[in-house]
Amino acid sequence: MKASHKQQALNRLKTVRGHLDSVITMVEEEVYCPDLMKQVSALQGSLERVNRVLLQNHLETCFTHAVHEGRSPEVVDELMETMRYTKAVTGPAFPEDV
Amino acid sequence: MKASHKQQALNRLKTVRGHLDSVITMVEEEVYCPDLMKQVSALQGSLERVNRVLLQNHLETCFTHAVHEGRSPEVVDELMETMRYTKAVTGPAFPEDV
Amino acid sequence: MKASHKQQALNRLKTVRGHLDSVITMVEEEVYCPDLMKQVSALQGSLERVNRVLLQNHLETCFTHAVHEGRSPEVVDELMETMRYTKAVTGPAFPEDV
Amino acid sequence: MKASHKQQALNRLKTVRGHLDSVITMVEEEVYCPDLMKQVSALQGSLERVNRVLLQNHLETCFTHAVHEGRSPEVVDELMETMRYTKAVTGPAFPEDV
Repeated sequence: MKASHKQQALNRLKTVRGHLDSVITMVEEEVYCPDLMKQVSALQGSLERVNRVLLQNHLETCFTHAVHEGRSPEVVDELMETMRYTKAVTGPAFPEDV
Repeated sequence: MKASHKQQALNRLKTVRGHLDSVITMVEEEVYCPDLMKQVSALQGSLERVNRVLLQNHLETCFTHAVHEGRSPEVVDELMETMRYTKAVTGPAFPEDV
Repeated sequence: MKASHKQQALNRLKTVRGHLDSVITMVEEEVYCPDLMKQVSALQGSLERVNRVLLQNHLETCFTHAVHEGRSPEVVDELMETMRYTKAVTGPAFPEDV
Repeated sequence: MKASHKQQALNRLKTVRGHLDSVITMVEEEVYCPDLMKQVSALQGSLERVNRVLLQNHLETCFTHAVHEGRSPEVVDELMETMRYTKAVTGPAFPEDV
């Protein structure tokens, strides 16, 4: 893993951990549900950014390396499979008005 | 907040915290990125389930209460605004074949 | 259905149909895949906005009506079930920097 | 574009067009909103599958070709940018229990 990507991913994950602890406290204190929901959505957004860092790192390192070795079909299938665990690869987009 | 929903939300959030700690360790050990990505996606899925519990609780308690008091327009707007922070209200769905 | 919501939903859906036709032409002409992907994501975003209009209409009309009739548990369950077809109720959010 | 991917994408998009037409009719007939929402979510899911086909095609063709030519940094950035239009790269996942 590239050092900068590793550091970015770790920093973000540790921020998520701190934020998560405060959300747990908020639930214990029975904060108003819509406010809690916004916090949980923000946590999901932070994790999404971690996944983007990991994806970028993968494409720049192992994936590129594998293509050079002629193992492109294999790593493409693996990546599609990784994204299959996920329900949204690319959408929805809100290009202009949200 | 209903006691059962509160307990469910807290249990799930605490499970996320434990899982998050292990993902941090996995990044420190530079586990293969596609494997990390699946873990992060699983964390997001767990948080999504927390948000569903919170939404259900909100609809059953404060939202219903407000409707009875004639404050329906107000709580609908608030809920739509809460979901505006989020990029996907309802889709995509994969009903049958993914 | 409220007339304004119905009109909004129909207008958006008809815009999606026009946009979809042009995306089909673009695929036939083998436009560069990343450009196609952005168009498809935009289509998904437009559909997401349709779903928000439908959700808002539902909450303001049938849902509110049902709560007044004491059928709150029933319509909450139905709404949660509707959103179960969807993989993301509320997240991820990208509050500040994406 | 690979012939099989092109055909798959076109078939799916044309199915979406037919489905979209019937959803427009359903809105005109004021079908119950939760039922409409499920249909719209299904449309989004179909478009998501189109985007997966396009992504796979891109990775197998232009992306792989560019890596062989030493343009890996350029195509990685382009792909990350493409996915930036989208709010969710990889999550949430619901591996087992939703």
